[in-house]
Amino acid sequence: MHNMAVLNAKELDFSAWTKTSLARIENMLDNTLPPETLAPQRLHSAMRYSAFNGGKRIRALLSYATAEFCDADPKIADAAACAVELIHAYSLVHDDMPCMDDDDLRRGKPSCHKQYDDATALLVGDALQSLAFDVLSAENLTVFSGHIFANRAHPQIQMLNLLAKASGSIGMAGGQAIDLASVGKSLTQAELENMHQLKTGALIKAAVLMPSVTSTPEKIAAVSEFASCIGLAFQVVDDILDVEADTATLGKTAGKDADANKPTYVTILGLSAAKQHAEALHHKALAAIQPYGNEALRLRELASFIMQRSF
Amino acid sequence: MHNMAVLNAKELDFSAWTKTSLARIENMLDNTLPPETLAPQRLHSAMRYSAFNGGKRIRALLSYATAEFCDADPKIADAAACAVELIHAYSLVHDDMPCMDDDDLRRGKPSCHKQYDDATALLVGDALQSLAFDVLSAENLTVFSGHIFANRAHPQIQMLNLLAKASGSIGMAGGQAIDLASVGKSLTQAELENMHQLKTGALIKAAVLMPSVTSTPEKIAAVSEFASCIGLAFQVVDDILDVEADTATLGKTAGKDADANKPTYVTILGLSAAKQHAEALHHKALAAIQPYGNEALRLRELASFIMQRSF
Repeated sequence: MHNMAVLNAKELDFSAWTKTSLARIENMLDNTLPPETLAPQRLHSAMRYSAFNGGKRIRALLSYATAEFCDADPKIADAAACAVELIHAYSLVHDDMPCMDDDDLRRGKPSCHKQYDDATALLVGDALQSLAFDVLSAENLTVFSGHIFANRAHPQIQMLNLLAKASGSIGMAGGQAIDLASVGKSLTQAELENMHQLKTGALIKAAVLMPSVTSTPEKIAAVSEFASCIGLAFQVVDDILDVEADTATLGKTAGKDADANKPTYVTILGLSAAKQHAEALHHKALAAIQPYGNEALRLRELASFIMQRSF
Repeated sequence: MHNMAVLNAKELDFSAWTKTSLARIENMLDNTLPPETLAPQRLHSAMRYSAFNGGKRIRALLSYATAEFCDADPKIADAAACAVELIHAYSLVHDDMPCMDDDDLRRGKPSCHKQYDDATALLVGDALQSLAFDVLSAENLTVFSGHIFANRAHPQIQMLNLLAKASGSIGMAGGQAIDLASVGKSLTQAELENMHQLKTGALIKAAVLMPSVTSTPEKIAAVSEFASCIGLAFQVVDDILDVEADTATLGKTAGKDADANKPTYVTILGLSAAKQHAEALHHKALAAIQPYGNEALRLRELASFIMQRSF
């Protein structure tokens, strides 16, 4: 799964696209987050610390890839990418807090509550969530004004509703609640899948669906299926890496999730079957966009990237 | 300030209006919050526990009063009232947590993190915030579809943006950050006012402004000024009650805010000047809607209610 070093021309193109897209999302986040010089300075400093934490911006890349697939307005793509990364950043800050996963480190740096304090971390997450909905409801996004959408909500309102549902108790927050309740329990594969569909899948799906709202029903259905499969594949690969990374670097076979007594795809299926499951989901994701040509290129490349990642 | 027992005919009318409006918001919240039978059950149970906590629903009442003043669509009024109460409920759950104000009780009942646990309380707040934006972005609210709003955002998007800004780091969450940082410090009246304008004023203003977005510029300006004044008056009365309630019931002159070394209007201005300040704000609020007749009745009555409350 680690052949990223073997680059051919097509992968170079993907690399250049990724570089451009990453510059775009970093710039968008920088313009969206209040400056550290604005009061309350400590809160704004902590919000920036948490949003610029070295994340890979997979969700933003999925938004940009879908925007290309659906030929969406660039402003819509930027708003969707930014909003979804703000929600992701808030979820990491709250997940790391002592009453949740109690992680002192996030990507090798002190997590927000360690760098600042618990109260600030709580408010950082709260304010990042508000900011995501602020970005999506910006007045200058309303390029649709004057259009008539018979029997359909305004596209921007659809995006806001997608993100709200993906973040809430029947989405990400609900998945986190199920995850906390499942420690030490034995789950079936279906229960594990349901938990991940909420905890990480819902936001990944929103990242893909938001830029698709003005597209055709066929394309929306295609990216919806693509997102469901790739969201789950993402999590299966995560579970595999949790074991394999530890095996390579720490010389032990059990990963930190297994140590934490959390059910994973590897503990339920075994390593070999987990890898087959990830491949099957990858193929299912590709099948969903198979009818399409070059406009689906970035989605295909991102799917491969997600399967190959070694972080 | 405690003459609620002396009812005349007009106050009976207000009482009936309040009763009707309260039934409306309770019903709206009940229909909006996921049932406790839906997974994750513990999270949904805790969300309902926190949203139905015996609060006075002042913010919802302000939304309904403004909707009457502006002749707003009832669906818009219900969504605004519900969203603002969900944001308020989330803020109380997070404020009570050990890393914030560490309050074990909320209106005489165990606070969310005591009744459930810290992790659940964190997720309850997060999910209640998402739900507020979910309600406001509901598809069946888009009664405006097909209208052209030249140079103005779609009204529903304006409402979403008002709530997002009122909740975030330049609104409620920012005010909470300033409040935490101000413990033990001596603030000027201007600094205290700025803190309260963010911490409680921003959400009260959003409660009023949201149902006004389709109204005339004159009426929007009038309720905006009304909301700013009544939001501050609300806080000044709070500070006065903190002292007077304790004086009456505990036989000491210093209230819990003063004990917590938090600056208040009473500590900065003294009790007598604080009462004069509250009255001045009340008069300024009434002056803002003075040109209007019976359509502003509920706003006037609510202003009096806020000045007279003894809770």
